[in-house]
Amino acid sequence: MIVNIGSVGLDTTRTPFKTVEDVMGGSGTYSGLASSYFSETGLVGIVGEDYPQEYLKILGDRMDLRGLIIGKGKTFRFDSSFGYDMGKRKTNKTELNVFGKWEPKVPEEYRDAEYLYLGNVGPKQQLRVIDQMEEPKLTVADTIEYWIENQKDALIEVISRVSGMVLNDEELRQLCETSNIITGARTIMDWGATFVIIKKGEHGAVLFTRDRIFPTCGYPLEEIKDPTGAGDAFAGGLMGHIARTGKTDFKTMKEAIIYGNIMGSFAIQRFGTDRLLTLTMEEIEGRYNKYKEMVTF
Amino acid sequence: MIVNIGSVGLDTTRTPFKTVEDVMGGSGTYSGLASSYFSETGLVGIVGEDYPQEYLKILGDRMDLRGLIIGKGKTFRFDSSFGYDMGKRKTNKTELNVFGKWEPKVPEEYRDAEYLYLGNVGPKQQLRVIDQMEEPKLTVADTIEYWIENQKDALIEVISRVSGMVLNDEELRQLCETSNIITGARTIMDWGATFVIIKKGEHGAVLFTRDRIFPTCGYPLEEIKDPTGAGDAFAGGLMGHIARTGKTDFKTMKEAIIYGNIMGSFAIQRFGTDRLLTLTMEEIEGRYNKYKEMVTF
Repeated sequence: MIVNIGSVGLDTTRTPFKTVEDVMGGSGTYSGLASSYFSETGLVGIVGEDYPQEYLKILGDRMDLRGLIIGKGKTFRFDSSFGYDMGKRKTNKTELNVFGKWEPKVPEEYRDAEYLYLGNVGPKQQLRVIDQMEEPKLTVADTIEYWIENQKDALIEVISRVSGMVLNDEELRQLCETSNIITGARTIMDWGATFVIIKKGEHGAVLFTRDRIFPTCGYPLEEIKDPTGAGDAFAGGLMGHIARTGKTDFKTMKEAIIYGNIMGSFAIQRFGTDRLLTLTMEEIEGRYNKYKEMVTF
Repeated sequence: MIVNIGSVGLDTTRTPFKTVEDVMGGSGTYSGLASSYFSETGLVGIVGEDYPQEYLKILGDRMDLRGLIIGKGKTFRFDSSFGYDMGKRKTNKTELNVFGKWEPKVPEEYRDAEYLYLGNVGPKQQLRVIDQMEEPKLTVADTIEYWIENQKDALIEVISRVSGMVLNDEELRQLCETSNIITGARTIMDWGATFVIIKKGEHGAVLFTRDRIFPTCGYPLEEIKDPTGAGDAFAGGLMGHIARTGKTDFKTMKEAIIYGNIMGSFAIQRFGTDRLLTLTMEEIEGRYNKYKEMVTF
């Protein structure tokens, strides 16, 4: 089982072509949906009393929700906009609500899970989750700029206790105070992680271990509807493939990065989680094989 | 033979770590030096009376210089700066000098060459060169923002008469008025080119034909001394590999893009043309093989 912790919320996303309000969102939602295609996934998160029953049913059809609690108050909400080029996101409003003071609790039944993914929650919350787990075979954590700025020490402690970190290139540069991603990746490994994965959006992702580098390019897409959740879906594909194979050797890790790219590419082809709810393994494997054929020379 | 037309000048490059003044530079210099490792290369260009004899000797050791004329006046000069992250270049001063009014003339002996590379000169100058050539097997052109802004019609005529275009992603977006590079590449092919190569700097390059896409990532480098000439060296590696194999099938084109990435990566590891003057084929093939092993999964 993959224990997947992250935000579960309601997103409002505005693009020049379409706006959606209060749709299913949050890092845990995207990564959990993506990994659920590959392996049993337990979602650890919190929603408010206003979180639609209908959404709970949809999530419950794909994931184990024993770790998802309904707190007193309103659900986490995130409102953001994209311009014509679907490039940089502009945050309009973030309402933490019940997510703000949440103290994550891992259900007893999840504690012996082999795979732990710590999505975007605060480093202190991530540490709390690590403490509750018995001894996962592989733990991977993500973070965002906010935590780099506000809880850097706790974040470095997280890095010292995980197998791998997943970061985007800007976050890496900021966290490690370097413009070069190879230098930055080495710093993260000096802090204790065994591997580092740098997400570069449309430009793909790079896997670093102490002695190897695996650079990949993104899956080329002509139509991008909504970039929300791409990085979380990437992490879900990554964790999912590792969990279903049960292996963590370099070959498996390389394949897992490609599944990450593939799941990220599906996520952005439709608004919100739409595409991640209707995929089949055949479509996923089909795109993986197409990607492999495309990049081979 | 590859006929290689481009600027030949003197560069002043300022970085926070080092500044070099009046070193060998220009698009034709970089692309010609890069292609000269693979195939006989004839340089068509102009320098002024102040161009150092010593530089002529260095260029002459690697290229056929019958197409390089010495004009009355001063050599083209380019002065630019990079910041700590070696990202965006800032142009301090451009002096066109003899390059400004140059009317390129292809020597008789070059006119039946099979391969023609039209580096960064104006589209009208590129057309003039195309007119002088008999019937090259493959013609590839590059351009820059300045010509997109000032001679777009002539540039589109160039595109209608070449086999392929090499552009960076920003130039493509600007020229084709789209944020999506796939859409942009299709527009270029609608204008007449058979293939389009989009250079994305450290993120690699993508080859487009009507029915295929070959995305590649850049060769990861920890130390970047001077990004000047990376795109021109890329084009040189590309043309060089095509010319040495004598083939233009998709497999050869894919390999050629990788040689482009490899030559670009060498260019930026030292200041100016330093690294491109001291390479061996063994080093080039070694890095190609290392790249191939690195990206295979």
